[in-house]
Formats: sequence, structure tokens, C-alpha cells
Amino acid sequence: MEIVALAGGVGASKLLVGLAHAMAPENLTIIVNTGDDLEMHGLTICPDLDIVTYTLAGIVNPATGWGIEGDTFATLQFLGRYERETWFNLGDRDLATHIHRSDMLRSGATLSECADSVRRALGVRAHILPMSDQPVRTQIETPAGLLPFQNYLVKHRAEPAVKAIRFDGADRSEPAPGILKAIADARGIVICPSNPLISIGPILAVPGIREALAARRADVVAVCPIVHGMSLKGPTAKMMAEMGIEVSARSIAGMYRDIASRLVIDESDASSRPEIEAAGMSIEITRTVMEAEEDKWWLGHFLVNLLHAKTTNATH
Amino acid sequence: MEIVALAGGVGASKLLVGLAHAMAPENLTIIVNTGDDLEMHGLTICPDLDIVTYTLAGIVNPATGWGIEGDTFATLQFLGRYERETWFNLGDRDLATHIHRSDMLRSGATLSECADSVRRALGVRAHILPMSDQPVRTQIETPAGLLPFQNYLVKHRAEPAVKAIRFDGADRSEPAPGILKAIADARGIVICPSNPLISIGPILAVPGIREALAARRADVVAVCPIVHGMSLKGPTAKMMAEMGIEVSARSIAGMYRDIASRLVIDESDASSRPEIEAAGMSIEITRTVMEAEEDKWWLGHFLVNLLHAKTTNATH
Repeated sequence: MEIVALAGGVGASKLLVGLAHAMAPENLTIIVNTGDDLEMHGLTICPDLDIVTYTLAGIVNPATGWGIEGDTFATLQFLGRYERETWFNLGDRDLATHIHRSDMLRSGATLSECADSVRRALGVRAHILPMSDQPVRTQIETPAGLLPFQNYLVKHRAEPAVKAIRFDGADRSEPAPGILKAIADARGIVICPSNPLISIGPILAVPGIREALAARRADVVAVCPIVHGMSLKGPTAKMMAEMGIEVSARSIAGMYRDIASRLVIDESDASSRPEIEAAGMSIEITRTVMEAEEDKWWLGHFLVNLLHAKTTNATH
Repeated sequence: MEIVALAGGVGASKLLVGLAHAMAPENLTIIVNTGDDLEMHGLTICPDLDIVTYTLAGIVNPATGWGIEGDTFATLQFLGRYERETWFNLGDRDLATHIHRSDMLRSGATLSECADSVRRALGVRAHILPMSDQPVRTQIETPAGLLPFQNYLVKHRAEPAVKAIRFDGADRSEPAPGILKAIADARGIVICPSNPLISIGPILAVPGIREALAARRADVVAVCPIVHGMSLKGPTAKMMAEMGIEVSARSIAGMYRDIASRLVIDESDASSRPEIEAAGMSIEITRTVMEAEEDKWWLGHFLVNLLHAKTTNATH
């Protein structure tokens, strides 16, 4: 059973571990946000691609959810001697990935080819695709000015208020090779519990992807990143509030209802079922908070069963 | 008193420590071989520039004469996971230099500007100039084929016999800014005890440098890299023998007599004085083998005194 997942970084990766546990990972295709990517020190850095890949490879730093477990920071520290920016954490092992990818890109490879090279080298069996081979760069409009996403998130610790979000380059981008076909052919599509504004938003801004999902709406399931009015991970709730969006599962339903028919919400939000169904999505209720490995496996199996059951129903 | 030194890597650096000890380092201008440079993993690596800079900064690995003391190799090891070449030793701290330089070059800086940025950041007061801002690449013709220099030296451990040496790009290169003026204005010029074939040779192959030195021949002193028929450092003797050149101070005199008036030889070679003088250079005898720091200081002071004495004589 082929499944496609739309993913940001840390929040998505937990669920991806669960999905890869619940199915043959070769049949999982992950479309990853690249709006977070940045160029620094002449290197192209793709935080979400790397988080997803390192997590599925089993080498991610479990304390942070990004970077490589046990990594050191000797190069970054020495880059500081050259008065270079050191606010973006680049571990020594992690740098090998950026050096490898940047060299491939300069030699004419596409970002898709880089992502595939990295995941194969690290032994990841799931397919990992960047949302686009063209650069799309998320920019956050704040009272402090327009900030490139990592600048906002890491350097400014997501503190400035978000006035607006732009996906520079999205209008000139196209889905990476294989994305539209994977969406069209999949038995089911999962929108991971990532930040809808800056993790799933950029993916949907690539011309063609939103339409492809809408055409498969009956088979698209979103996992709600908001539980009991709070983000599962990162500044999602804060950003939604600053953008004037109610921080609730109902708002998430409002954002996804054109492309997804079902929303998985946490059991603690079960009482929101009526208002979400009124907003136009059907509801599935389970435990969505993933702390232990077992929580990830649980949610992964829940989703795989859900998509499988639906398919089985449809074919009988 | 302004002094110019022509330098390769490890052998030269010992003497440069001595020169910088014997004079105000601000008055020392070092012209460094870049024929050894290589491109790897998308990075421009300049072994001799880095050896000279790290040595004068006091951070060189004393066990090897190259690299940074206490450096680790986490990035290089991880690059191996991407099936990249790992035979060229790149330490984590050292990589910061290559990343910094490569990013500067891609942003339009010259190699001279990179070298100056690195030496200033590391607190080196002597001026360090690459021989040229244009790429010159030493190639070694061997029975195993034509090998880029580091490939020959490191990957093949200088084992293949040397049939010929080429300096690709030299004919299209020009001296880095400041070199010709530094040579013209210096009170004295020192040719360090580097390999004449592949360390000093590339510098002399940059159009204009040999002529500039010849015009100052009276003030150019070479330190003989051959002591008692053996190299002070590295494969100099082996390469000379394979090229059909006698491994002796006399041969060195033959190679340098057009551009240098004096050759400093080790006291153990004192008996060669007549034949070297017959070859057209005057001789200075001292201890040239540098093991302890004191040996470097000794030779540095010896040379500074020699050049100073000459100037004093000339003005009286």
C-alpha cells in the first residue's frame, strides 16, 4: 500500500517513524518542506530534509530532534574565528551532509538527487522528496523587518511577532519529479502534524500540489498539530495567534478542508468533533501526542489502518 | 628592514618561525606556493598557505607540521558515508578555513584577500601572499599517469617515480598584487629550504617572479634544502634523483644561481664550498637542520644578520 506524507521537520518526523514502523517503508513517499532552507558559508542547508532523513536513519539527536546524535561543533566554533555567523547550529558530522549536497548541487545535480543520495547513504528505505527542486524561501514579516525563516526561528528564537508570511520563489517553482504521480497513485495521503503556516504552507504554495491533493481529497488525512489549544511542537500556536487565527483544531480544519477529508484529533479534544465536522471535515479521534516510541508507532499504525480500512471498504 | 621569503609548506615554515622571531614580523612578506592547491568536495584547499599560516599562528599540529593541533576528523569520517574521497586529511577546525576561503572566493574575493583574511583572523602579523591569484596546479608525470600533486603526495604517498613536473596554468598566471613591489623594495630575499622542484619551482614559474628575483640577485639568499645528500624534509631527494638531478648542495646551487647570489649550507656540508662557489654562488655556512625551536630561531637570526650586515656594508 503506497502512502504519501507531507512533512515539515521535528513534529512530522515523529509520525514518520510511526508510519515507517507500520508499513513497508519502501512504500512511503515523504514530501518535505524546503521553505526553511538557507544558504550559509557557501553551503545549502535543508533543515527539514535533514531532520526527516536523520530521524528515519535513527541517527537524529533525540534531545533536540535535529542534528546528529553525539555530534561535535569544532568547525562551527572555528568559523567564529573568521567572524562568521555561528547562530545556526552546524555539527561536524552534519556539515558533511551540507558539504556533500552543496558540491552535488554545484556539479549540476537537482535537490531531489541530493536528497535521494543522502537518504540512501544513511540507509533510509522510505523515499524522501523535496517539495521542489527550485528554491523557495519562507520569509517572515515582523515588526523587526522581513526575516528569512531560520533567521526568525533560530537567531531571533521565534520571538518577533508574525505579521505575514511569504514563500519567495514559490510562484516560479514546480513540484519535484515524482510528486504529482505519487499523490495521484497513493492509496492514502497523510498531512503530518507540522506547522500548517510554515511547514505545510510552503508545500501547498508550490503550484500544482494543492490541486493534486484536492483531487485526492477523499484519501487525504491530516493529523492536527494543535492539541487542547497548544502546539504539539514549536511556535505553531504563537504564530497562529499572531496571525489572528484561533488556536484550535477547528481552525486547522478550516485550513485543510479543501484538500483533506479527515482530521485526526487528540482524544483530549474529542468535544470539538461537532464544530469541526460543521467546518467540513470528518473526524478521527485517537491519542496524537507522541512522547515515547510506542506513541509514534501507535499513531503510525492507526493511520495505516485507517487508510487501509478505507481502501478495503471502497473495494468491497 | 623588509624581508621577503619564498616558501613551500612544512620545511619553509620552520625557517619562517625563525625569521618572524628575529625581526618585526610586520616587515616579513611571505610568498607561498599554491601549485599544491586542490579542489575537493567543492572546497578550495591551499595546503601550503595553511601550513605557513597555522605555523606562524602557533596552532599547527607539531606532530605532522600540517593541520591544527588537537583537531578532530568527524566531518571527514562522515563524508566517507557519502562515498566521498577521504584520503586527503581535513580536520574539523581546518575545514572552517576551507569553508571560509571557498565562500569568499565564490563571493568574488581573490585568493590574496582570502589568505590575508585567514592570517589576520588567526593573529599572524607577517604578510602572507599566494604566489598568484590565478590557479596554478602542479601535476606529476609518473609511470602511473599524470597525477595532481596532492594525489601524488598524499594518496600515492610520493611512491610513483617522477618523470616530469608540470605547472598547469602558470603561463596564464601573474604574480599576486604586491609581490613584484615587495621583491623590488626588500632589503633581502630568502628562498626557504623547501623542495626546489615542487615548492619553489611553481613560484618561479609565475611569469615575472623569476625576473624580479634575478634583478635583486645580489640580495637573494637561498637556504639549501639538501644536507649531506638527503632532504631536510619530504621527498625532495627522491624526486631529484628520479629526475636525474644529483642530490647535492651543488645541484641546488645550479638551480638557483641565476636568481640568488648566496647559498646557506649546513656545516656538515662545509667541504662542498669550493665546488658550489665554482658553480657560481657564494657560500654561507651554519647549522641549517632545524629540530628544536632554538634551531629555527638560530637560523632566522643568522639570515637576518646576514641580510642586515650586507646592507650595512653596502651603505658604508
